[in-house]
Amino acid sequence: MLYIVGLGLGDERDITLRGLEAVKQCHKVYIEAYTSLLSFGISSDGLSTLEKLYGRPVILADREMVEEKADEILSAARVSDVAFLVVGDPFGATTHTDLVVRAKKLGIEVRVIHNASVMNAIGICGLQLYRYGETVSIPFFTQTWRPDSFYEKIQRNRNLGLHTLCLLDIRVKEPSLESLCRGKKQYEPPRYMTIKTAIEQLLEVEQAKGESVYNEDTECVGFARLGSEDQIIVAGTMCQLQLIDFGAPLHCLVITGKTHPVEEEMLDFYRIRRENL
Amino acid sequence: MLYIVGLGLGDERDITLRGLEAVKQCHKVYIEAYTSLLSFGISSDGLSTLEKLYGRPVILADREMVEEKADEILSAARVSDVAFLVVGDPFGATTHTDLVVRAKKLGIEVRVIHNASVMNAIGICGLQLYRYGETVSIPFFTQTWRPDSFYEKIQRNRNLGLHTLCLLDIRVKEPSLESLCRGKKQYEPPRYMTIKTAIEQLLEVEQAKGESVYNEDTECVGFARLGSEDQIIVAGTMCQLQLIDFGAPLHCLVITGKTHPVEEEMLDFYRIRRENL
Repeated sequence: MLYIVGLGLGDERDITLRGLEAVKQCHKVYIEAYTSLLSFGISSDGLSTLEKLYGRPVILADREMVEEKADEILSAARVSDVAFLVVGDPFGATTHTDLVVRAKKLGIEVRVIHNASVMNAIGICGLQLYRYGETVSIPFFTQTWRPDSFYEKIQRNRNLGLHTLCLLDIRVKEPSLESLCRGKKQYEPPRYMTIKTAIEQLLEVEQAKGESVYNEDTECVGFARLGSEDQIIVAGTMCQLQLIDFGAPLHCLVITGKTHPVEEEMLDFYRIRRENL
Repeated sequence: MLYIVGLGLGDERDITLRGLEAVKQCHKVYIEAYTSLLSFGISSDGLSTLEKLYGRPVILADREMVEEKADEILSAARVSDVAFLVVGDPFGATTHTDLVVRAKKLGIEVRVIHNASVMNAIGICGLQLYRYGETVSIPFFTQTWRPDSFYEKIQRNRNLGLHTLCLLDIRVKEPSLESLCRGKKQYEPPRYMTIKTAIEQLLEVEQAKGESVYNEDTECVGFARLGSEDQIIVAGTMCQLQLIDFGAPLHCLVITGKTHPVEEEMLDFYRIRRENL
């Protein structure tokens, strides 16, 4: 049996009772490390908080391991119970579809234990989840790679009065270009896009395209460390949010569509006060 | 302090450790009873499973109580810790924005403890969450009230190749029309829309509007009791899904947009086999 267990958004205490029960009875426990384990206080050499809670060792599975060594996880799951832990919900922002498909093809039973993900937790700001259009991803721009397909999607959403969730790029354990050329893998330090960078890139694309989809005065909501005890949620214009230090990652951004009075009333609690700028 | 605690989708074991900790330290514990407590095995006279787990009494708060007697909840939260339990995520399919707004206006600190909701748990079928358009609600049609605003929204989503989540109507503790006329409230028995009824209504509207947004052969995914141990997930055409007995509520339906190969691969596991019909 392969258990895919969502850990939720905060820390080790956000696992469900059902999830904890499953993990405790598993022979092997892997944790995906290629989105973010920041809020779980895990560095590559320290999983101790989780291990203490679960009463068993936890194996850090980075992107390469899950992609290249899925066989190891799957052959273990064939003969015993294996847990694969995922930050957020197993099928939230990141997808673990491939591992599940491979398991099912091998006839391994898969059980999913859900949890909160960014996709539903953003509801806390008061903007109704059913008033969101398509979600977009904002990738880090480089000198030569500045993909802007998000622009058209935001345009469509805004034309319909819908809100847009922007997921911001995460680069963890990316092999450096230099090391790839040399044939010996070395990794870039992890990078997490800030709200400030996301807005810069958004405005750059607006300037290039010039179709007035949004501008500096467009209302947005910025989220940092959503679901953690030190989360920050601020509503304001793009211009205003750029001035705010949201602190440590992860960040995400919502571009507000047409709002209803109930949504406005809730947003007001998160709105920037001029005196705080 | 007012804790708004998501219970998740399955049963009492889907609360998070953080949520359970909060509930256990609260002086008063309310549970919202106006969406559905079905999967929690709670009838109006029996909250015992939850009460045993929490070690304290749980007050059933139906729609009237939350709307009319919010004062009671709020004045309790002013002087002590109060938990308000919500099936799914606090800001998932249903909204509890109003209670939160009132609390914040009174200066009561509010803490939200997230959990899975239908909005993210549907990811389990393999359709990517970021490829969904606006969510729609399908209300029970009556002789005189047949609102069809969902049709246009589905049309927009499908034109963009996006999937559409259809939330199906729930009628719990609705005063009967007859009793309202008599001035003495009596309630209709609870009603939960089935996938079969939803598809009937969808096809009726398509026939009336005739804009070929979808038809009997349109691929959908039906979910029953999502997140519970006895959940059923079936992919098939509208026509096929109408023949399936999904059993007890809650049901929801996804109308598939344009799919990617990875999505297809996962959907295949849920697809109806002709021999099962």
